[in-house]
Parts: sequence; structure tokens; C-alpha cells
Amino acid sequence: MPTYTTEFTLKTSGDTDIRDVTDRAAEIVRKSGVSTGLLNLFISGSTASITTIEFEGGLVFDLKEAMERIAPSSLPYEHNKRWGDGNGHSHIRASLMGPSLSIPVRKGGMLLGTWQQIVVVDFDNRPRSRTVEATVVGDA
Amino acid sequence: MPTYTTEFTLKTSGDTDIRDVTDRAAEIVRKSGVSTGLLNLFISGSTASITTIEFEGGLVFDLKEAMERIAPSSLPYEHNKRWGDGNGHSHIRASLMGPSLSIPVRKGGMLLGTWQQIVVVDFDNRPRSRTVEATVVGDA
Amino acid sequence: MPTYTTEFTLKTSGDTDIRDVTDRAAEIVRKSGVSTGLLNLFISGSTASITTIEFEGGLVFDLKEAMERIAPSSLPYEHNKRWGDGNGHSHIRASLMGPSLSIPVRKGGMLLGTWQQIVVVDFDNRPRSRTVEATVVGDA
Repeated sequence: MPTYTTEFTLKTSGDTDIRDVTDRAAEIVRKSGVSTGLLNLFISGSTASITTIEFEGGLVFDLKEAMERIAPSSLPYEHNKRWGDGNGHSHIRASLMGPSLSIPVRKGGMLLGTWQQIVVVDFDNRPRSRTVEATVVGDA
Repeated sequence: MPTYTTEFTLKTSGDTDIRDVTDRAAEIVRKSGVSTGLLNLFISGSTASITTIEFEGGLVFDLKEAMERIAPSSLPYEHNKRWGDGNGHSHIRASLMGPSLSIPVRKGGMLLGTWQQIVVVDFDNRPRSRTVEATVVGDA
Repeated sequence: MPTYTTEFTLKTSGDTDIRDVTDRAAEIVRKSGVSTGLLNLFISGSTASITTIEFEGGLVFDLKEAMERIAPSSLPYEHNKRWGDGNGHSHIRASLMGPSLSIPVRKGGMLLGTWQQIVVVDFDNRPRSRTVEATVVGDA
């Protein structure tokens, strides 16, 4: 069957804002008509990522803290000296975590773990409007 | 040709247990009948990842040490305060490394480097039984 | 339509050499004839990765510095003690960042952000010749 594609947008507040997009992804799979295959999610832009996490307030806090330790916002990034937008750390975090995620589709739904949600992580240092591109391949 | 899907399970011992699953992935590609395409592997659950590494004892040790430095188990995670399961660091590591990996299939086999093996990395703090979901798309 | 596959090689200088391969990826998508689908890029080998970044000199410098902090080259890696090739840190960085990237294809081109380029990051400690394997799936 043909590749099914769509996109959705979300507003983020920046500073490692972590948003659960599992329900939107599940709706895309339902609409695609694909029963068996793969869903790929991709976030365009160089300061945000997509991954999975158990989406609960404690871990949302912990992941923000962890990314601050891994790529601290306080360091003197060359990017900031040249471009003055102050988000050097955001770029580094996004390159490390990556912009793309593929999830198996089975029996018309995503095969995630019970405590595994899909999240957009916006590392930028200001509010953004983000577009997530979805591609579903497979069989009806 | 139709999408080929299967899964396999493995028992892990936790604490960044790193298991070579290359042979099992290769067998899946053989059984799929796909000659040219992609194999996707996905681990459901929010405390384990899939990546590639040169699977030798030195690096297996080094990767465990590296992940302990990157997301230390000794820090006071909010997740642990709220849920008491002591695996906040496991979640952070898994979200960073990611749950999904896609590998090219060529001439009916995986196109990996000579010293490149596929590993499941279980970051949880206890033994687990893990399921890896495999999806093969492409042509016979 | 059939899966389109090809590969390209590039020479890298090692020590977290970051190379922009966006144009080569775009050319592959054009040649594939795929209008709607996915491009997967995979680097074989266990000391290099593929990700996206805003490819400008400041961030290229910053990412090298960041990876040196995240997995320092100066630590006493077991891999180095056993094999003597001195690239333990290269393996750890590559396993963390990952070897594979999937990018949506729309209207015959890649759907990247305006400031988002595709890069090969070679973490090895010496010059290498690298092969990137490309797989394009989807519809004409």
C-alpha cells in the first residue's frame, strides 16, 4: 500500500521542554490504515529531538537536569560567540539525542512498552512552534 | 513483498548489561526472504536501548563505565523519590541512547562493519526479560 | 516501487571529524525517483556516527569539545589496554550517538530544517575511508 505521510505541529516553551506526543502518533497510525510496518517520526530543526521515556513528572525533571550536566548551558560555546543566539548547548544536545525515531506498527497500533511514551524534546532557549513529520510504511 | 515481522526475547541481568544480538538479527533477515531493504530493531520498555559496538570485553566494560559517568546512578533522581524503584539513571540513559536502530539489508544479509555488532543495552537495575521487535522491509 | 540503494565514500581525518554530507544525500534522493517516503543512512564501522546539526564552524568546534567532555580521550579505557589502538573513546562516542539516521522524503526531496544539515562524525583517532550506505523506500 502507498506510504502514508502527515505532520503535526506543537508549541514548545524551550529550555528542554519535554512533550508527550504518543496520542498524536497513535492517531496517525490509525488513520494510515497500516496494520503491520513502521512509523517514523522526524523533527525538522537542529535544536530539538524525538525519543521515548516514561512520561512522569519526576523523569521529566531528571532528563532536563541530566542534559544540563551532559551539555551545560553555561559553557562558552563558539556558536554563541559567532551568532549571539545563546543556544549552543541546545544544538549539541539535539545532535547527540537525534531527530528521528522509528516505532513498530502491529495490528494497527504502535508497539510501545507499557511505560514508554514518545516525546519531543525542545532544547532551544526560547518558545518555538515545531513540526513533526510522520511517515508510515507497511501493509494494510 | 509484504513486511516481515517477528520478535525475540532475551534475559538480561540489569546494570547496563550489554548483549550481542547480531546472530539473532542475521537469522531474522535470512528468514525474511528480503534481499534488499532495511531491518529495524526496536526494544519496548523505557530502560533499555539498542545500538552497535565492537563487542569485546574491554569495550563492554568501558561503555558501562562511560554511562555511569554520563548519567550517574548515585545522583538524587526525582523519579526515585516519587516511585522508589531506584532506576532513574536507567531511564535517562535509555532516553539518551534510544530504543530503535535501522540497518541496511543487502544480498540477503545485514551490512554491518567487520567489527560492528548489534547490542541490546539493558540499563535497568534488576534482571529483566526483554522483547526485541524486528521489522524487515524491502524486496526479495 | 523497488527499494533504491546506493553508497558513497568519504575520506575523514579522524578525531571527531565532522563532515557535511547533505548534498550527497539530496542527490541520492533525486536519483532514487522516490517522491514520498524515507531515506535511511547508515555508516558501517564502530567508531563513526551520523546525525544532524547546523553545520557552521562554531558548532563544529563545540560538538568536538562536547564529545571530549562526554567521553574523554584521556581516560584509561580497557579497550586500549587490550588492543593498543588508543581509540576506546571513539567507540564509546559512536555507540552513544548511533550509526543510523532516517529522514523523510517529500516531493522528491529531503524534508530537513533550514539550518539542519546531515553530518558524518568520525570519532576514530586516525584518518579513515568511510562508506555510507543509503536506502530509499517509498513511492514515485
